[in-house]
Amino acid sequence: MNYFMVFYIIGWILEFEAAFLLLPALVGCFYGEFRQSLCFLLSALISLLAGFLLKRKKPDSRELYMREGFVTVSLGWFSMSAFGAIPFVMTGDIPHYIDALFEAISGFTTTGASILSEVEHLSHAGLFWRSFTHWIGGMGVFVFIMAILPLMGGSTMNLMRAESTGPSVDKLVPRVKDSAKILYELYIGLTILGAIVYMILGMKPFDAFTTIFGTVGTGGFGIRNTSIASYSPQLQWAITVFMLLSGINYSVYFLIMRRRAKEAFRIEEVRWYLIFVVLCTGLISFDLRDVCMGFGERIRDAAFQVASIITTTGFSTVDFDAWPAFSKSILLILMFVGSCSGSTPGGIKISRIVILTKSIGKELSLMIHPRQVQKILIDGRPVAHETVRATNVFLVSYMVVYVSSFLLLSINEYDFTTNFTAVAAMLGNIGPGFSMVGPTQNFGFFSPFSKLILMFDMLAGRLELFPLLILLRPAAWKKY
Amino acid sequence: MNYFMVFYIIGWILEFEAAFLLLPALVGCFYGEFRQSLCFLLSALISLLAGFLLKRKKPDSRELYMREGFVTVSLGWFSMSAFGAIPFVMTGDIPHYIDALFEAISGFTTTGASILSEVEHLSHAGLFWRSFTHWIGGMGVFVFIMAILPLMGGSTMNLMRAESTGPSVDKLVPRVKDSAKILYELYIGLTILGAIVYMILGMKPFDAFTTIFGTVGTGGFGIRNTSIASYSPQLQWAITVFMLLSGINYSVYFLIMRRRAKEAFRIEEVRWYLIFVVLCTGLISFDLRDVCMGFGERIRDAAFQVASIITTTGFSTVDFDAWPAFSKSILLILMFVGSCSGSTPGGIKISRIVILTKSIGKELSLMIHPRQVQKILIDGRPVAHETVRATNVFLVSYMVVYVSSFLLLSINEYDFTTNFTAVAAMLGNIGPGFSMVGPTQNFGFFSPFSKLILMFDMLAGRLELFPLLILLRPAAWKKY
Repeated sequence: MNYFMVFYIIGWILEFEAAFLLLPALVGCFYGEFRQSLCFLLSALISLLAGFLLKRKKPDSRELYMREGFVTVSLGWFSMSAFGAIPFVMTGDIPHYIDALFEAISGFTTTGASILSEVEHLSHAGLFWRSFTHWIGGMGVFVFIMAILPLMGGSTMNLMRAESTGPSVDKLVPRVKDSAKILYELYIGLTILGAIVYMILGMKPFDAFTTIFGTVGTGGFGIRNTSIASYSPQLQWAITVFMLLSGINYSVYFLIMRRRAKEAFRIEEVRWYLIFVVLCTGLISFDLRDVCMGFGERIRDAAFQVASIITTTGFSTVDFDAWPAFSKSILLILMFVGSCSGSTPGGIKISRIVILTKSIGKELSLMIHPRQVQKILIDGRPVAHETVRATNVFLVSYMVVYVSSFLLLSINEYDFTTNFTAVAAMLGNIGPGFSMVGPTQNFGFFSPFSKLILMFDMLAGRLELFPLLILLRPAAWKKY
Repeated sequence: MNYFMVFYIIGWILEFEAAFLLLPALVGCFYGEFRQSLCFLLSALISLLAGFLLKRKKPDSRELYMREGFVTVSLGWFSMSAFGAIPFVMTGDIPHYIDALFEAISGFTTTGASILSEVEHLSHAGLFWRSFTHWIGGMGVFVFIMAILPLMGGSTMNLMRAESTGPSVDKLVPRVKDSAKILYELYIGLTILGAIVYMILGMKPFDAFTTIFGTVGTGGFGIRNTSIASYSPQLQWAITVFMLLSGINYSVYFLIMRRRAKEAFRIEEVRWYLIFVVLCTGLISFDLRDVCMGFGERIRDAAFQVASIITTTGFSTVDFDAWPAFSKSILLILMFVGSCSGSTPGGIKISRIVILTKSIGKELSLMIHPRQVQKILIDGRPVAHETVRATNVFLVSYMVVYVSSFLLLSINEYDFTTNFTAVAAMLGNIGPGFSMVGPTQNFGFFSPFSKLILMFDMLAGRLELFPLLILLRPAAWKKY
């Protein structure tokens, strides 16, 4: 293990975090919250100092093998959360460090599950930081530093691979650095566009920016206790659209920008994504016929909640825990599905589901025509054997982490629905689940032990399991 | 598709069923239930006639390809259940045919879930038939006809493959016919031994035989409303032991009979099975410390319920739905696990779980040492690539069938726990689940539509999915 290189990169991460922490300090100053601003400034200094110490020893070798990429990303995300939690404690918004850490991890991993029952009494600086962590975590901080630092040689791919989502990494252009840059340009573009639309539709700038951070990062922290319910129907529709846009593979935008829209719309995963959204919205709208009367309202509620869950954002406009069982079951299934690979949401990802489902078809065909060569095709091209294997292992790992977490959570003696959906919501980076962790509830009541498990699940979900699982293997820590 | 051969074999199955139906008729005569006996006799005649008609045209070719083996086994099991349900309706024990079919499928698939709220008013003949279906279905009727009929040429393997459990078929001896014979000899031996032990410990012969049918078949239909709760502690322990013995790969007994006990105890799956049983019993006993006071009783309750669920039998001695959440979670997980391959229970099977879990280890090792060749080893031997692939596809198919069934069941508007565990209990061939389908409840309240889904799940679980899934593909029905 090239420890110095690992420390060096984490040092960079913390220095960037120090810079990010200045933003809420500024917001605080603007709203006259000077005490809070000072806290954020101090936190920034602490982060800067830690980063400086970690960066002091320049690594002899800049080579990063796969396992080091994975370890770096895991530790980097954990460090970022550990330092990002400090201002919550300092300002007194969240007095206990373990709760603050939960909130920070929930923010960076774009889960959006809160331990707070009441968010409206938080300072503007605090609310801004909460939502801004979504934005940082959404596209990924490693992608960010790759985009702007001439940090590494050819082995940066291993960092990108560990932080990006989906069964295979899609480099938009040959160089990793350029790909990262393009991703962030698109991400920033979508953010600014969304903020403008929200403001045009009547949001105050502060609301618009915090909400769009939660939207494009697919996070889900709201700045009101009722999440999005109190905003106008127009705004709810706008947020629905921007959530759905954020669940699409960023390659699509890249292709559209390059005037290759035709190619973009031929991507199978995106088509399945849109089919799922339309189908689930339709089914839920129909199922809600006895619950709410207005047809338009029903469609709006269904579309918003479906978009929120499939993109793993976790905003809500209604208490969907009170919906009929069929609608709840659809939402629960969507919690596992997630959106497109190469986008900001969590979950298993549609491309994986498509590959796995097609593998059943292949097996059945093999049984019918044993001598015929069968291939799994995606976008008309055969899927590499390694990708199929990795996808299968991903599913198994998801199950294993799921089952273990569920079992450990059960020690708490809460009901089955609470435990089961809490893990689904954490591992899928959704936010709310059902029953005691429903959209009108929060995660504050869990024991510290349970919170640790849930934090692990959030990180495992965001980093797609392997970077975290590899930490559990002693061989990963060995020097070579 | 060689339709004539398919019909011919199903014809044989129905003729055998006719013979089996004479047994409850005899039991009825013995207990003076002449009306019921007549019903069973009539059912036997109907079955015989149907079998005769199907067998009239001798097939030109006796070749059975894989897909035909699968289709034959699926249709054979369905036909067997369809005719096995008739006496329930005729005797009036279960007036509605769809309920009777549910009960018959539940019997043959060794699920043991009942639609009856009250079984003690049933006739002896009816109770005997209910339990006897477990015995027929446990080892499998196709294995049975293979053992005693000089029916087929070399392609019998495809029937065996479709009906046997586990990721790969274990032929004990080179010839399929001999393997089938040995399996039935062991099965009958275990049945007789169990019945004798039960009688020595105080059961009446009728109770002893019906209970051992449910035990070795890992079915779970009881002849009392309280399942096994009213029997003595000694009997409960005896049943625990026989359930556990029935969950072990029959290869073990074969090896022991051949004085190769050392080899038998080296089988990894069996070791994991025993570890699971001991571990789960220990954890549940500890978790029950506040629920029931006596240490011996706690161990007995925990061991019985663990054995009942891991072997997918479904007997109960307590209402485990009232247990604390942690114990219930363990039982729920065991519902998915199931026992050893090559035994009578349902579920995913421990060998599959071991292969899948080891595939995670392999993937992580590959990440750490990318150039090292990694193999999944079971019993010290590398697992064939095809087996790993089939195991992965099995898991995915299990999930797909699970999720689809769960969603369709949700239309009913029952609670999440009911829907979720009902599917788990059906697909794993367990019997009881939690909440409205808990051990003191029954499945009678479901709508006919839901019952159809649950019946599909029971058959899919018993035949390990593919024989049923292949029916859904039009290509499987084509003539060649």
